[in-house]
Amino acid sequence: MTLTVVGSIAFDAVETPAGSRDRLLGGSAVHFAIASSYLADTRVVGPVGDDFGEEEYAVLERRGVLTDDIEHVPGGKTFFWAGRYHRDINQRDTIQTDLNVFEDFQPKLSEASRDAEVLFLANIQPDLQREVREQCRAARFVAMDSMNLWIDIAHPALIRTIGLVDCLILNDGELKQLTDEPNLIRAARKALELGPRVVIAKQGEYGSAMITRDGYFGLSAYPTPDIVEPTGAGDTFAGGVMGHLAAQGGDVDDAALRRAMAYGTALASFNVEGFGSERLYELDRAEIDARVAELERMTRF
Amino acid sequence: MTLTVVGSIAFDAVETPAGSRDRLLGGSAVHFAIASSYLADTRVVGPVGDDFGEEEYAVLERRGVLTDDIEHVPGGKTFFWAGRYHRDINQRDTIQTDLNVFEDFQPKLSEASRDAEVLFLANIQPDLQREVREQCRAARFVAMDSMNLWIDIAHPALIRTIGLVDCLILNDGELKQLTDEPNLIRAARKALELGPRVVIAKQGEYGSAMITRDGYFGLSAYPTPDIVEPTGAGDTFAGGVMGHLAAQGGDVDDAALRRAMAYGTALASFNVEGFGSERLYELDRAEIDARVAELERMTRF
Repeated sequence: MTLTVVGSIAFDAVETPAGSRDRLLGGSAVHFAIASSYLADTRVVGPVGDDFGEEEYAVLERRGVLTDDIEHVPGGKTFFWAGRYHRDINQRDTIQTDLNVFEDFQPKLSEASRDAEVLFLANIQPDLQREVREQCRAARFVAMDSMNLWIDIAHPALIRTIGLVDCLILNDGELKQLTDEPNLIRAARKALELGPRVVIAKQGEYGSAMITRDGYFGLSAYPTPDIVEPTGAGDTFAGGVMGHLAAQGGDVDDAALRRAMAYGTALASFNVEGFGSERLYELDRAEIDARVAELERMTRF
Repeated sequence: MTLTVVGSIAFDAVETPAGSRDRLLGGSAVHFAIASSYLADTRVVGPVGDDFGEEEYAVLERRGVLTDDIEHVPGGKTFFWAGRYHRDINQRDTIQTDLNVFEDFQPKLSEASRDAEVLFLANIQPDLQREVREQCRAARFVAMDSMNLWIDIAHPALIRTIGLVDCLILNDGELKQLTDEPNLIRAARKALELGPRVVIAKQGEYGSAMITRDGYFGLSAYPTPDIVEPTGAGDTFAGGVMGHLAAQGGDVDDAALRRAMAYGTALASFNVEGFGSERLYELDRAEIDARVAELERMTRF
């Protein structure tokens, strides 16, 4: 099935204990698509400026990502984010955020994008997510991300959008903040009452958990001693999840969702091993499958 | 095989969002033994004062715990701890700690205790842990806990003791602190270099992870929406781990350790459902086995 992702396309500048980079290809839609491209044909919807050139398109196209719906805003600059990671790489500070062309982004979906059967609404303003959701009438499975900013300043809009998706994928802290409930299971159940049938909590270095009305699945993270730069790990995880579900084609049942999370976990573990998504530029499918199999052995008792 | 635990016996006073209690039977050795008693004969070594009476002995003896090595200090008072849990039950403040008879505790092991084949050194001063370890010459598998206090004020003694055990069981934060290494896998590998062949990181609401020289096992926590009072969850986890290993009798291999962690997780999940260890007073073995089986279904993909 076809997979469309709507989200940010960015340049990131990062400082980490392992070194620094001043211009990494990033953004939620990019991290997502680089990952999902290993599993399913992926179309990216998002805006870029004049500084987004052939080199960047080439990275995506080498991965088979469909770039027709990347919107070039003449005279604009691409979204820019700069951050500094601590020695404990789970901690970071944002140094700079320039929205640039992302500030006035109004998603324009081509017919091909609107026909997506599997849709991921990466972290953008929730009213925009809702407009995209409503345009994609053929979508059979829709998931979304969000962030603390929208929980704070656009709560009613966010709640409305959550009511229109099948699956909510959030950090566990965001899920607790959204529902004002410090216990993850209770928080997830409150989120299920808003409409989705699946809630996936991303738990960073600990792994992830899926909560449905009648089930629970907990998956440890893949153990990674050498974390270079973790920006985009959550979007990469989502890309693995949605890519697997799109590839599955059929019903999105409990078993498919579990295996999808394993793919998300494996791909995210590659993501953090390099700067940006660079570690994912030249993987082959067998390496990914091998890591999923390894994860299975590492979590079975 | 026989299992001996050396640690604290205490009265706890707790305030939680679900209510408060001013005199709960607690302490690391008690939480451990109440749990392990479902799986193996357990002997407790630790000091109590005059306020520790027949009622408390009866609780332990109803669970089949061997109490001969509980040392009554005439004129003394039992260790007392008071704490307050936040709305987010993962956060707590200590209000009061009265060491009482625990302050001058010098473990005196009976012949039966010294003959233990499986030994758990709960969180006490590391030189005392080492003395106990050295007395138990028949021990085939020895594990230990510790805490941030000893990492801070008795670091060399702690390192020496770690060098004498088979398995180190710590919170993940403590493991990172001990080794001054913010990445869990690297921290665990540093801890393995100190001597143990197994390191188990307790990760609270997220679960636990086992790191050995050639392997990794990650286990999600059992999802618990109704946490009443979590004091002793870590000791209960250790009790399940060591109880299962003692019951196994044979070699402590990777498969046995994995299943042991599942028993620890299941028992800890009962522990947090009530005040103190009360939820564990009247379980039956079938309920525990059922929760282990449920955990297996919840973590398999």
